[in-house]
Amino acid sequence: MPSYNEALDLLTTEAQLAPPTTETVPLCDALNRISKCEYRSPFSTPKHDTSAMDGYALNAAATRTASPSTPIVFHVAGTMAAGDAAMVISGEPDSDASVYPCVEIMTGACFPEAIEGDQRPFDACVKLEDVDVLVGRGERPSGNRYIQVVKPLDANQNRRLAGGDFSEGDIVVEAGTRIQPRHIMALAAVGVKEVEVVRRIKVGVFSTGNELSADARSRVQDINGPYVTACLRDWCIDVDFLGVLDDVAETMVSELESRLRGNKYDIIISTGGVSTGRFDLIPAALEDLFARVVFHKIAIRPGHPGLFAKLPMPDANGPETAFFGMPGNPVASAAFLRFLVLPYVQRLQGQSPESAFKATIRRYHNDLETNGAIKHDTNGFGSLLSTCPVDKDVFRPGVFHRHEASKLDVMLINDHGPGKIKPFLGSNCWIHIPQGKSDLYEGDIVDVFLNE
Amino acid sequence: MPSYNEALDLLTTEAQLAPPTTETVPLCDALNRISKCEYRSPFSTPKHDTSAMDGYALNAAATRTASPSTPIVFHVAGTMAAGDAAMVISGEPDSDASVYPCVEIMTGACFPEAIEGDQRPFDACVKLEDVDVLVGRGERPSGNRYIQVVKPLDANQNRRLAGGDFSEGDIVVEAGTRIQPRHIMALAAVGVKEVEVVRRIKVGVFSTGNELSADARSRVQDINGPYVTACLRDWCIDVDFLGVLDDVAETMVSELESRLRGNKYDIIISTGGVSTGRFDLIPAALEDLFARVVFHKIAIRPGHPGLFAKLPMPDANGPETAFFGMPGNPVASAAFLRFLVLPYVQRLQGQSPESAFKATIRRYHNDLETNGAIKHDTNGFGSLLSTCPVDKDVFRPGVFHRHEASKLDVMLINDHGPGKIKPFLGSNCWIHIPQGKSDLYEGDIVDVFLNE
Repeated sequence: MPSYNEALDLLTTEAQLAPPTTETVPLCDALNRISKCEYRSPFSTPKHDTSAMDGYALNAAATRTASPSTPIVFHVAGTMAAGDAAMVISGEPDSDASVYPCVEIMTGACFPEAIEGDQRPFDACVKLEDVDVLVGRGERPSGNRYIQVVKPLDANQNRRLAGGDFSEGDIVVEAGTRIQPRHIMALAAVGVKEVEVVRRIKVGVFSTGNELSADARSRVQDINGPYVTACLRDWCIDVDFLGVLDDVAETMVSELESRLRGNKYDIIISTGGVSTGRFDLIPAALEDLFARVVFHKIAIRPGHPGLFAKLPMPDANGPETAFFGMPGNPVASAAFLRFLVLPYVQRLQGQSPESAFKATIRRYHNDLETNGAIKHDTNGFGSLLSTCPVDKDVFRPGVFHRHEASKLDVMLINDHGPGKIKPFLGSNCWIHIPQGKSDLYEGDIVDVFLNE
Repeated sequence: MPSYNEALDLLTTEAQLAPPTTETVPLCDALNRISKCEYRSPFSTPKHDTSAMDGYALNAAATRTASPSTPIVFHVAGTMAAGDAAMVISGEPDSDASVYPCVEIMTGACFPEAIEGDQRPFDACVKLEDVDVLVGRGERPSGNRYIQVVKPLDANQNRRLAGGDFSEGDIVVEAGTRIQPRHIMALAAVGVKEVEVVRRIKVGVFSTGNELSADARSRVQDINGPYVTACLRDWCIDVDFLGVLDDVAETMVSELESRLRGNKYDIIISTGGVSTGRFDLIPAALEDLFARVVFHKIAIRPGHPGLFAKLPMPDANGPETAFFGMPGNPVASAAFLRFLVLPYVQRLQGQSPESAFKATIRRYHNDLETNGAIKHDTNGFGSLLSTCPVDKDVFRPGVFHRHEASKLDVMLINDHGPGKIKPFLGSNCWIHIPQGKSDLYEGDIVDVFLNE
């Protein structure tokens, strides 16, 4: 019986045997897909010096003596909107009015360039709100616009320098990244219009058990089918629920065989029927299908009867299909799905392993259940909370708190069991207690995986 | 100019004016939908005493003297699979063989019931692995099966008592819950087959700006359109990206008007064009459309130029459409979307406000960026990190750490700006610094909203 870590190693090896193909999707369809390769910025951004404000681009040094009583007047020589090619004009004073030029400029627009050799570059932007606009009169030609600046500007004020955001070659998205909105923002910013992503993993899900089938003597609602399907969908996996398999060996074999022949699924999952009971027919069905069983039974709790196999395509030299035979108890099945199937999918997709939250484990108090902001006191620290089998990795539902003092607490639910759904419903995380840890004391630091 | 909290109050009031209708969906399609009402368990679960193991149901007291040298033999009187109606048999010893009966029982199957008046109820299950199975020979009728128990059992061992999980009337899902897989598990367990959920919110998204349009002199890639669309999709909102609006007042008015006439959207969002620049034409367009502006400009940073309005249906007495005019700077737009549009959607859907993580704020260190498991030292605590405008709520990108000592740290990114995308890409959360807080010191506790 492999340990949990050994099982993860086996899953890793098997995932590497069957890397999924890739496809190219438009950027707008890349959300939550897994990038196949690394994306780097092909250029520095912004490409040009741009304005951070709506206002007027001008030469900062020319405003040095500006004050409300001695305003500096600039002639508005043009307008630049975002996306306009940089205007090239002389930065020297107009010959007619002896005032310096400025350029009306919108947020994101390029700074105008002064003619080569000019001593007065456009190097700052005065905000729209900070100037008075004048129209030409007296010695200034009418029809022209002017602004008055009443406060000195610093060089580069409200100016975003070219290359001040991404540099050419900066990594924007690493290979194996689940593409989130901020990656889409960054890819758009560096001009990426389509993304090479891992093809969507396709999973077929069966429930097993006569009691679930339509003509059962005492109809029992299928719980695992809807739960497993929902989890996989939530993980952005393409999933088909394939129905309930009766506890009849021939039916199981022929149903699985027909799904294998179609070669439609990367993974087939069943729940129930993997243990040692008289109606646990999955292992025998797999034998009939010439399965290569990678492991059957594993040193975890709950979920230990589960199995992982590779099934050959019947009567053909096609690719193998991964098969997870999960236990029938709902919480055992949930743990197996979360801690064995999901890691397999992540490895198939080239993702890095997840990192856990670290939290301080506490005794479960019902009155804390609904109150996220409790005092983190250390009363009770050191008292025994639970004893775990030392030879197994244990996964327990817990209640995780965002704590007011920036500490993380997690409460261990003691009234639990692989068939008990109410405590699992009331939980919002899994607590992972690794093999080798037996006594769990209040105040111990544990690994927590959110399930909110 | 309203404060952030005042704006939230205005959004709440407006959301209550237009509650979305509901629809009923099959349980398997309820993932990530928002429940309209509360669901309670209509009965207690399990409905019957059931077995927690594959094994044999028997009377625990009859095993009192069992040991390897003095095994107790039971006659296997029948088999119960999950879903079978409870078998009623006599718990008294067989007349022929003077052995007590037992019933082969599968995990989840009902316990057999003893005939009324019998002193020997079936009240425990011995695990399959813990017995020897005998076939009839000698004084025991051949063809019958027997088991030998070698260890005493406790009453209720491996027996799940009826009502031991959900009680009748227990709340399974509260109104306004985003339905997650564990809710689906619990609803299935209590027999719920369809769920009344809030109709999916429908949002139309425009970008604005001549620089983004196909015939721009110097083509600029639209960043906000893809980002906003991706975020809304990630929040399970039904979203259409409606394209880029040129900075031409008539076009804006006619485009918006045609979308309003269709009455297809609960919310229309635009990015850009809401500030005071010459091409900021959204406010004027709204005026032409007889908009009721709820707020324009708000005391937040970034994102202050944004607006929220309700637009009447043109030339008709239809319902108003909500309109968010978001700023054009990508990070300002992202903050406005996250902290104003999302709360409006949540209120429309009847969800409770989110709760933040509390984390200790730290100075940004580049070497910590990629290392989630760092020591939480207090060097530098008390040193000034940043000064925020005291009259505004400030939202800043941050880097959040799962800390090995069950403490949460968040690093403030100092090199930031509403137009800088690289720092936002490198962040995994928002830090919210409320109005009234000016100086931010290392070691302060702040509110953090994950953005992973």
